[in-house]
Amino acid sequence: MIRVGILGASGYTGFELIRILVNHPGTTLLALSSRGLEGEAVAAHYPAFKGFVDLRFLSPESPVFEEADVVFSALPHGASMQMVSKLLDKGVRVIDLSADFRIKDVSVYEKWYQKHDCPHLLREAVYGLPELYRKEIAGAKLVANPGCYPTSVILAAAPLLQRGLVKSDNIIADSKSGVTGAGRGLSLATHFCEVNEGFGAYKVGGVHRHIPEMEQELSQLAGSDIRITFTPHLVPMSRGILSTLYLTPIEGVSESDVEDAFHEAYDNEPFVRLCEKGRFPTTLQVRGSNFCDIGWKLDPRTGKLIVISAIDNLTRGASGQAVCNMNIMFEFDETMGLTFPPWQP
Amino acid sequence: MIRVGILGASGYTGFELIRILVNHPGTTLLALSSRGLEGEAVAAHYPAFKGFVDLRFLSPESPVFEEADVVFSALPHGASMQMVSKLLDKGVRVIDLSADFRIKDVSVYEKWYQKHDCPHLLREAVYGLPELYRKEIAGAKLVANPGCYPTSVILAAAPLLQRGLVKSDNIIADSKSGVTGAGRGLSLATHFCEVNEGFGAYKVGGVHRHIPEMEQELSQLAGSDIRITFTPHLVPMSRGILSTLYLTPIEGVSESDVEDAFHEAYDNEPFVRLCEKGRFPTTLQVRGSNFCDIGWKLDPRTGKLIVISAIDNLTRGASGQAVCNMNIMFEFDETMGLTFPPWQP
Amino acid sequence: MIRVGILGASGYTGFELIRILVNHPGTTLLALSSRGLEGEAVAAHYPAFKGFVDLRFLSPESPVFEEADVVFSALPHGASMQMVSKLLDKGVRVIDLSADFRIKDVSVYEKWYQKHDCPHLLREAVYGLPELYRKEIAGAKLVANPGCYPTSVILAAAPLLQRGLVKSDNIIADSKSGVTGAGRGLSLATHFCEVNEGFGAYKVGGVHRHIPEMEQELSQLAGSDIRITFTPHLVPMSRGILSTLYLTPIEGVSESDVEDAFHEAYDNEPFVRLCEKGRFPTTLQVRGSNFCDIGWKLDPRTGKLIVISAIDNLTRGASGQAVCNMNIMFEFDETMGLTFPPWQP
Amino acid sequence: MIRVGILGASGYTGFELIRILVNHPGTTLLALSSRGLEGEAVAAHYPAFKGFVDLRFLSPESPVFEEADVVFSALPHGASMQMVSKLLDKGVRVIDLSADFRIKDVSVYEKWYQKHDCPHLLREAVYGLPELYRKEIAGAKLVANPGCYPTSVILAAAPLLQRGLVKSDNIIADSKSGVTGAGRGLSLATHFCEVNEGFGAYKVGGVHRHIPEMEQELSQLAGSDIRITFTPHLVPMSRGILSTLYLTPIEGVSESDVEDAFHEAYDNEPFVRLCEKGRFPTTLQVRGSNFCDIGWKLDPRTGKLIVISAIDNLTRGASGQAVCNMNIMFEFDETMGLTFPPWQP
Repeated sequence: MIRVGILGASGYTGFELIRILVNHPGTTLLALSSRGLEGEAVAAHYPAFKGFVDLRFLSPESPVFEEADVVFSALPHGASMQMVSKLLDKGVRVIDLSADFRIKDVSVYEKWYQKHDCPHLLREAVYGLPELYRKEIAGAKLVANPGCYPTSVILAAAPLLQRGLVKSDNIIADSKSGVTGAGRGLSLATHFCEVNEGFGAYKVGGVHRHIPEMEQELSQLAGSDIRITFTPHLVPMSRGILSTLYLTPIEGVSESDVEDAFHEAYDNEPFVRLCEKGRFPTTLQVRGSNFCDIGWKLDPRTGKLIVISAIDNLTRGASGQAVCNMNIMFEFDETMGLTFPPWQP
Repeated sequence: MIRVGILGASGYTGFELIRILVNHPGTTLLALSSRGLEGEAVAAHYPAFKGFVDLRFLSPESPVFEEADVVFSALPHGASMQMVSKLLDKGVRVIDLSADFRIKDVSVYEKWYQKHDCPHLLREAVYGLPELYRKEIAGAKLVANPGCYPTSVILAAAPLLQRGLVKSDNIIADSKSGVTGAGRGLSLATHFCEVNEGFGAYKVGGVHRHIPEMEQELSQLAGSDIRITFTPHLVPMSRGILSTLYLTPIEGVSESDVEDAFHEAYDNEPFVRLCEKGRFPTTLQVRGSNFCDIGWKLDPRTGKLIVISAIDNLTRGASGQAVCNMNIMFEFDETMGLTFPPWQP
Repeated sequence: MIRVGILGASGYTGFELIRILVNHPGTTLLALSSRGLEGEAVAAHYPAFKGFVDLRFLSPESPVFEEADVVFSALPHGASMQMVSKLLDKGVRVIDLSADFRIKDVSVYEKWYQKHDCPHLLREAVYGLPELYRKEIAGAKLVANPGCYPTSVILAAAPLLQRGLVKSDNIIADSKSGVTGAGRGLSLATHFCEVNEGFGAYKVGGVHRHIPEMEQELSQLAGSDIRITFTPHLVPMSRGILSTLYLTPIEGVSESDVEDAFHEAYDNEPFVRLCEKGRFPTTLQVRGSNFCDIGWKLDPRTGKLIVISAIDNLTRGASGQAVCNMNIMFEFDETMGLTFPPWQP
Repeated sequence: MIRVGILGASGYTGFELIRILVNHPGTTLLALSSRGLEGEAVAAHYPAFKGFVDLRFLSPESPVFEEADVVFSALPHGASMQMVSKLLDKGVRVIDLSADFRIKDVSVYEKWYQKHDCPHLLREAVYGLPELYRKEIAGAKLVANPGCYPTSVILAAAPLLQRGLVKSDNIIADSKSGVTGAGRGLSLATHFCEVNEGFGAYKVGGVHRHIPEMEQELSQLAGSDIRITFTPHLVPMSRGILSTLYLTPIEGVSESDVEDAFHEAYDNEPFVRLCEKGRFPTTLQVRGSNFCDIGWKLDPRTGKLIVISAIDNLTRGASGQAVCNMNIMFEFDETMGLTFPPWQP
């Protein structure tokens, strides 16, 4: 049994970590932090967890976290890097759900986010997408857990770029997210009556902070510099991301080449499921699970390849993937604690 | 006061016509048909209309429709063409909300839909998008009311193609529709529990029947053959379409050229509203109204132009636009009966 | 044309007033206040109203409001009373949507709310439920617009209490409201992800502030002191209140006595609709309209009379009813500007 | 490992059984029936279960079900009784989720439902509410799994009736259910656009078939004949039932007597959670779990006792409770396979 701490446990990714870990056979919940709720019982604040969690929220500075075998940081970027660095110094392994350690190039990080306090850790951090970095994750002290949009986009494009089946320019990802993606903080943008029946785009035109993360990984896969056109949208639902990618196949590439590539890449992956020909994923079919479902179709009239992926933004897009990374780091079975089916309906 | 008939009045576009027309100062509701509900009081079937409609549903074959000044046909394609033809013979002007008279080239229609029974009417029919065909609509006997997706896509692209600001290839429209777009008929795809929290794409890869209609009008505007990559999605909400278009500007075209084009095209249009710089439309902001709201942004990193349009699929995408066409045909003020603001919230 | 001002125009009841008044043929919008948004263009803040409202938000203290023929106050209780008093002094007629002038007995008001600054106005204020106080409203300088829950409960019970058909004790109202009832302010309770799939009760056990208002009016109707058991619930939807009342008929009273009472009371009322036998109202059937739909059934097994009413909380429960009161005060047709059908679907 | 069959596995309660059982450590899924989908792969029909279920749907008459240790019947009432009887004859233990064996008095069953084909089994059947019949369930061959509404109402009232704290007349239950309660079959009543923003009551006035079941159990608890006024409502959400009960305390009973009764009855129950004073349950806090959360308040102004219970209608109200019964029957830990926390958010 390993001892686990969660920093920033009062938001949605924190809750999702708790939900998964209370049923994980290899872990004990040691400590949960929330600056705003310090001292309050977790179950009092969130009655759903009554009977599952007896802990009270601690300050993120509490020394108890140093006794953990692993700490998940669900703090916001900027706030996360300092806590992470301190814990690593104490020998605690860390899985960071913020963006602070995802970008390898510190100048890119600082352009899109803010000044970085511990750039020396960027090289050490492993990007926690198991399908791409399983081996490196196993030995990592610090895992940078991928963003929700990047997870959905990279998994959809990786087999094609890696095998050189699509061109590296002109890649478009039109993504749609449920409202948990906007977090538990209060704003008009997440007020029920402003969201309900209101579907729209935001951060249009190359300004969403998940772009450099996608480009870093896609470029790595393609072996050449990639720029992506990415448009996020907000869907009136709680959970899920669906990404619709528009790609341009290299001349001569057929739909069956595409099919082969996906099967070769993912048939042995426990958390990627490929749709049968003519079927496409929906967010409901993966809700509450760690799966990424992927479907595709070559438009014979325009030559474009459309690839569609669906994930649960809180599970595969955040906390489920983080637990999967923990499993790999601690030599548990990779699916341990993550074998529950999607919530239906 | 003109007398109005509605064929196929028991579905959502029929209801929307009734909703608008009971408050239209220039019309009287003469007759409503529903084969399945023949003889039943409209208000008994749909209590919301109690106090507004005293009529009973008639058979679509009822001779009463021949006494109308104008008949809206909200019948399904295939069924509509025969009724329309008969009414035109009797001198009744018709606004057809089905796809039967939208496609000018009968072979294209027959490839995407079915055999056409009255191809001679295709030439006579006017495509009922007021911003493009106002003059022709005024004198038309038969108006082919545009499809919901095509309305949202054509209005977003028209000023740019017409002025040659974007390339005519590589056009992508990623569209998202509320569930009323799937009609009032019963299917698992519209069951509350299958839709709720379930966002997904359908008819992926060049197979949706609205494609030839879009291509016909976009090609006409561009003066060259256009093929579009179009992916429709279903959103867990009742009303609204948001279309996100990805276009490639001609070299040298700037965002301000785009801005000028939109303002030139639409500043005097009563039912198009342009978003201020940095703002983008949402379905909630147009819900229940005849507006098409449009926003755009040039992605400086990839050079793509993103144009986003929002309409209410039942109002601007069907019945509101149909009433607007009626206003033009009968020399009413174009906005008569359509001056209500969007439903908020 | 009368000139109209709205104090507190940036919340949901303010928006609903704007929505209705921009289409009202007898009024001009003179001034809108919002302390937080002073100076901002209304249409910039709420793009849905682009093309409808050219005004900017003013301070509530702006002297422009004194030039109005009537001012609607959508300010919170406490804040409203002072502004109202000032305007009345200047000869402006006022329709107050807060609770400040609904309770006749100042000690009751002060027990449930706070200290009252202008108790002398309580006698002058007319409770703005047209079905009960039409005549008094016509001559009123100050109308206290009823609360949303009280509107739904009083209209459902009035004909029965007035005619002595039900006992005055043991009255239960189990009410369910959409989220707009909680206002546009931010709180976890209105966060999309906390509301979605979350149905619950609040202010259980005789503590909701609408109780004294209900009891005042029901007691008046019954001619005896009434205490009501009232439980409000929050429904994951934007608009609507459904109240389910449990009443005990006086011995010998039959379902047809009940039916007669409702028809006698409401058959000539423009904004009450009675359901046919065996049918019951839903919030969707009245959404966006000023109707109160009512259905009832005597449970033959237990002897209880169940009466169910549905209103739109923002229209009949607030702003629509306020406009109706304005119509009566200014001798417009009572339905002017309110003749639109419910939003379907 | 016991072998499990599910009859009627293609509806929502069937899915919920599958969801729970694929993770249950003591069971193997042997066979699933669906008459309409016979021969089809379960995972093809419902992609969410891809990777979890390799079976194909069988006919309910398939002899494979006779090899099961236990069969869950999720068939509709009427259809269920015949299959159940046949399986019992073959020595298979059965948990029936239909209403066919819940009512002890055959004349009551036949009055509310239809002719009963195997009334001799009514005496043998055990009503599967573990809190009341744990011991009898352990030895049962046939468990009649309680209805969803009755579960929520009986658990809320049981401790009070059993201890004689409330009067046995004048009991009112105002219940609200998510749409899965209406099943997966198609009807306008479950069409997304008819449900969304539409809250209403149905089967008003003593006609819902769950009434005799509630009355049987409540009478048994009270030791006297009870009649209940029950009004079900449909909430625009997928899962959950909230029941608001109005009870009349016996003179002298205080809120702390009530509190004691609940704690005495439920403190050792694994699947009942009591709210802290001043808090009340919501459907979201129990969603996807087997918990029944209960809160209460004595209205000091009217003397009424309000008790509110929340369950997930598919889990505690159907399939979760059925698995719990199976655990008891086969001497598994009662919580086995049911230890997952509620789905948040």
